[in-house]
Amino acid sequence: MVDCGRFAVKRTLGQRVEVWADIFRDGHEILHAAVKYRQVGARAWLQMPMEHHEADRWRGVFEPTALGRWQFVVEAWVDRAASWRNELERKVEAGQEDLVGELSEGAALLGVPSLTVEQGLADKTKDRIEMTRGPVLEVDVDRERARFGAWYELFPRSWGGFKGVEKTLPELAGHGFDVVYLPPIHPIGHTSRKGKNNALVAAPEDPGSPWAIGSEEGGHSAVAPELGTLADFERLCARGAELGVEIALDFAIQCSPDHPWLCEHPEWFHRRPDGTLKYAENPPKRYQDIYNVNFACEDWHGLWGALRDVVVFWVERGVRVFRVDNPHTKPLAFWEWLIREVRERQPEVVFLAEAFTRPVRMAALAKAGFSQSYTYFTWKNTKWELTEYMRQLTESTMLEFFRPNFFANTPDILHEYLQAGGQPAFEARLVLAATLSPTYGIYSGYERCENVPLRNGSEEYLDSEKYETKARKLDGPLLPLIKKLNEARRANPALHRLDNLTCLETANESLIAYAKQEPGNTVLVCVNLDPKVAREGLVTVADDLGLGASFPATDLLTGKRFTWKTGGNYVGLGPGQSHVLRV
Amino acid sequence: MVDCGRFAVKRTLGQRVEVWADIFRDGHEILHAAVKYRQVGARAWLQMPMEHHEADRWRGVFEPTALGRWQFVVEAWVDRAASWRNELERKVEAGQEDLVGELSEGAALLGVPSLTVEQGLADKTKDRIEMTRGPVLEVDVDRERARFGAWYELFPRSWGGFKGVEKTLPELAGHGFDVVYLPPIHPIGHTSRKGKNNALVAAPEDPGSPWAIGSEEGGHSAVAPELGTLADFERLCARGAELGVEIALDFAIQCSPDHPWLCEHPEWFHRRPDGTLKYAENPPKRYQDIYNVNFACEDWHGLWGALRDVVVFWVERGVRVFRVDNPHTKPLAFWEWLIREVRERQPEVVFLAEAFTRPVRMAALAKAGFSQSYTYFTWKNTKWELTEYMRQLTESTMLEFFRPNFFANTPDILHEYLQAGGQPAFEARLVLAATLSPTYGIYSGYERCENVPLRNGSEEYLDSEKYETKARKLDGPLLPLIKKLNEARRANPALHRLDNLTCLETANESLIAYAKQEPGNTVLVCVNLDPKVAREGLVTVADDLGLGASFPATDLLTGKRFTWKTGGNYVGLGPGQSHVLRV
Repeated sequence: MVDCGRFAVKRTLGQRVEVWADIFRDGHEILHAAVKYRQVGARAWLQMPMEHHEADRWRGVFEPTALGRWQFVVEAWVDRAASWRNELERKVEAGQEDLVGELSEGAALLGVPSLTVEQGLADKTKDRIEMTRGPVLEVDVDRERARFGAWYELFPRSWGGFKGVEKTLPELAGHGFDVVYLPPIHPIGHTSRKGKNNALVAAPEDPGSPWAIGSEEGGHSAVAPELGTLADFERLCARGAELGVEIALDFAIQCSPDHPWLCEHPEWFHRRPDGTLKYAENPPKRYQDIYNVNFACEDWHGLWGALRDVVVFWVERGVRVFRVDNPHTKPLAFWEWLIREVRERQPEVVFLAEAFTRPVRMAALAKAGFSQSYTYFTWKNTKWELTEYMRQLTESTMLEFFRPNFFANTPDILHEYLQAGGQPAFEARLVLAATLSPTYGIYSGYERCENVPLRNGSEEYLDSEKYETKARKLDGPLLPLIKKLNEARRANPALHRLDNLTCLETANESLIAYAKQEPGNTVLVCVNLDPKVAREGLVTVADDLGLGASFPATDLLTGKRFTWKTGGNYVGLGPGQSHVLRV
Repeated sequence: MVDCGRFAVKRTLGQRVEVWADIFRDGHEILHAAVKYRQVGARAWLQMPMEHHEADRWRGVFEPTALGRWQFVVEAWVDRAASWRNELERKVEAGQEDLVGELSEGAALLGVPSLTVEQGLADKTKDRIEMTRGPVLEVDVDRERARFGAWYELFPRSWGGFKGVEKTLPELAGHGFDVVYLPPIHPIGHTSRKGKNNALVAAPEDPGSPWAIGSEEGGHSAVAPELGTLADFERLCARGAELGVEIALDFAIQCSPDHPWLCEHPEWFHRRPDGTLKYAENPPKRYQDIYNVNFACEDWHGLWGALRDVVVFWVERGVRVFRVDNPHTKPLAFWEWLIREVRERQPEVVFLAEAFTRPVRMAALAKAGFSQSYTYFTWKNTKWELTEYMRQLTESTMLEFFRPNFFANTPDILHEYLQAGGQPAFEARLVLAATLSPTYGIYSGYERCENVPLRNGSEEYLDSEKYETKARKLDGPLLPLIKKLNEARRANPALHRLDNLTCLETANESLIAYAKQEPGNTVLVCVNLDPKVAREGLVTVADDLGLGASFPATDLLTGKRFTWKTGGNYVGLGPGQSHVLRV
């Protein structure tokens, strides 16, 4: 139960829902229990029996067979006929002979004129009285992509627009990416446009930030002419579908001063008493290039509907994945409503929350319906930080609704570890992201180990692609490692899950090691977190991994074969280097 | 919240309720929150402000001022005026000068024609919009006796009936007992009466088991003539009230074959199709001397009401504490209803559940309303068992509704540890019971170290007082220790609570040590669990007890003074001996 059943738990298609309940009654009656379940909207309930586990604990399992919302409920009841039979059996076993009264009770219960002991014992009648049921709970079923996938983020303007990206898609697919995420593709405002390196005034040739959405050429349902046409975009999506790479769009609600909505629907924006619109600000900061909508405006119904229609517009053009910009600055109730509205129409849609905010709020967005969330991963670089963070994410309740997406970098986050550590740091972080979390991503330039910050102490990139166009193509020293990791991820079901992580002792603060296990598939990972110095130590494979006294292990990155054992295993790794061992 | 608010949390008068909530909203609005509370039935809500703790966590505290059920609810809201002021302040601090728009907003908000910056900053208006509230939860408030007390169980027939007990009361009070619990005092059935040592056939002079309730002389509202009259009983209660010792009664619902209800209300009992009543049985066992009521009979309403009236009858005669026999064999719904009915009339009433059953069911009875419960304490004799059990009892959710009563023995439970360990074992268990749990008890004979079992391997007493009359008076080698322990308990607030327990390391499996702390009062206890051999070891006082480098400590059992220190303290204790140190 998430928040006492207020929110749904999450599963992907093919994942089972294990339901545990305490079921008991005074007396010695025979109890039965079942978990009933159905897709929301279905008339009939399906049913799986629950089994008695131990003491008063019962367990049932069911597997939703379609995307979308399902309901489930635990029912338990007394089987009076079985209870009577059980009492009769115990009396017969004890050698009790005067059973006339018992048999007359049984006859009345079974609705027959009379019974013999043999008839009573042979009876198979089941009945149900005192049916009781728990709360009706929900499970929201996503497709596998909501749980497992490798993401690549790129600015299409740096790749020759939609056509250029379309040409690069086979290469991205070949390197094992599942999702290509594009920052907003809509026309960019002119008024108060930001220049290079976030300059307040743009030069005439500056392309502006894609997050300043809307110009005289259209708003959230238009595409920026410099990227191509809507038809080009649709062709890009179709090509992705052929190659097994999905195109993910950005859903960023803010509007540039030139967005058509500011004229068409000034009532949707924050206004002063004199009627003028208010740009975004968080004093002392001012964002003159952005106007935020007012979710609580009088016509909130029209506004919310228009925003829903924007998402539906792109869904109708083939988009199934949305990365949502700063959802934590908008009302939770809005997201809960919007995501439900969209997924009722198209349950394949996946929403990734780009919320870097307090833990409770990130959890709340996931509860409200976001399929995935950005995380604090980029800021967790030491062994202790990583271990503690994984502990939080794999805590039982979080697992039921929060799916992390480990981006190793983003256009806004170039961590100091990468700035200082160079290629070994990039390698270490790539392996961590790709093996700790079933879903991970990189923003283009990572494969080239781009690591120059705006200035010392900043996590922003110098000459950030947010404000200028680069000339990009897929190359860089990390591509072979990326390809191997993505192949290893696809081939090893243990890397498709988050809940199967076990941290291993290494007796060395620079060496982090962990196992991921799935029936028939174990992957052991060891990473040297030190990007400057080779490190060695003993990785302890605990008994409870059940791997046997010794076992062969193949490094999926190098192809080398090792014999490992339960107990201590010597590991020596160069700066930022890793073992990804398939047992 | 206990079970998502389905059940009340428990407090005693004078205890505060600490309420924690996650409270947040998108945006930068100024939030406020309060916990509202009222006694059930009161019209007006009282209110305590909640304070922001950290991140999105808020804390509020209130103290119920009367016995019975209270409700509480968290409310949170946006203060638009404060939010506006806060924004204005930040802009003024940032040196922003053009604030005309802001001031016009403020004027509109405050309902004045115009505002200056100074007027805006000086404004004190508070307002509330977007009020939101959590679920209404309940707290059930008992008097202190529900949490803290020393119990003594005695069979009044062994002490000269009610008058004899009345004469012994000053001695019991003098030894520090708070509650004297009497097994059923009602007329005992003759039919199928059990003889000495639970013999199936009683001799003519055998008095029978007090739990076989009812004869031609009356049922649950009558007193057995051999004990005295109802007036004698009322005088006993009155004398107890003078001395500060309460008389607790047993509420056992089963009826002997001679109970008046079997004739007056045969419809309340289990009947066969031929109309005959069914005695209790759990095949192959048969209990021909007991008839159980049928809580689900057609006239369940009449039956439940009659049972409620039995309790109310004794409440009206001055009884405020009931020990309920085997509540787990009756429906939970019945107890929830009955306890509420009784406590709505007289909220001083305390119910102790004599339920030795599975943990989930014991917890369920406590949730349903029982003020206290018997426990597994008698069977927890090793250091590991005791430590693990205390961990379970002091787990955060259990603490909110489950109050243990640590009986060191009962007429049914003479543990093998006591049988084999003799006086040192009795001393060790007494100290453990009296210092681990705020409520504890002994059954008479404990002070005399009576330890002869019915036979080897049995936990029953030989010549059990359940089936025969003894000639008892208060004596025995343990009385001085009992008196000292009860004095120590009363004088040290740290021993009045369960949640303030810290286990200490001793590096010796025979030595258990723990601290109980209350602001200004620390008690350190160390017990040698070995009843045969003197043991020594180091008791480690951890830093986080905050007791300082070294500190004086007085043994409340011997009066000896020690100097203890944070870190290791040498302890040597004879078989079964203890330190109870007041720091």
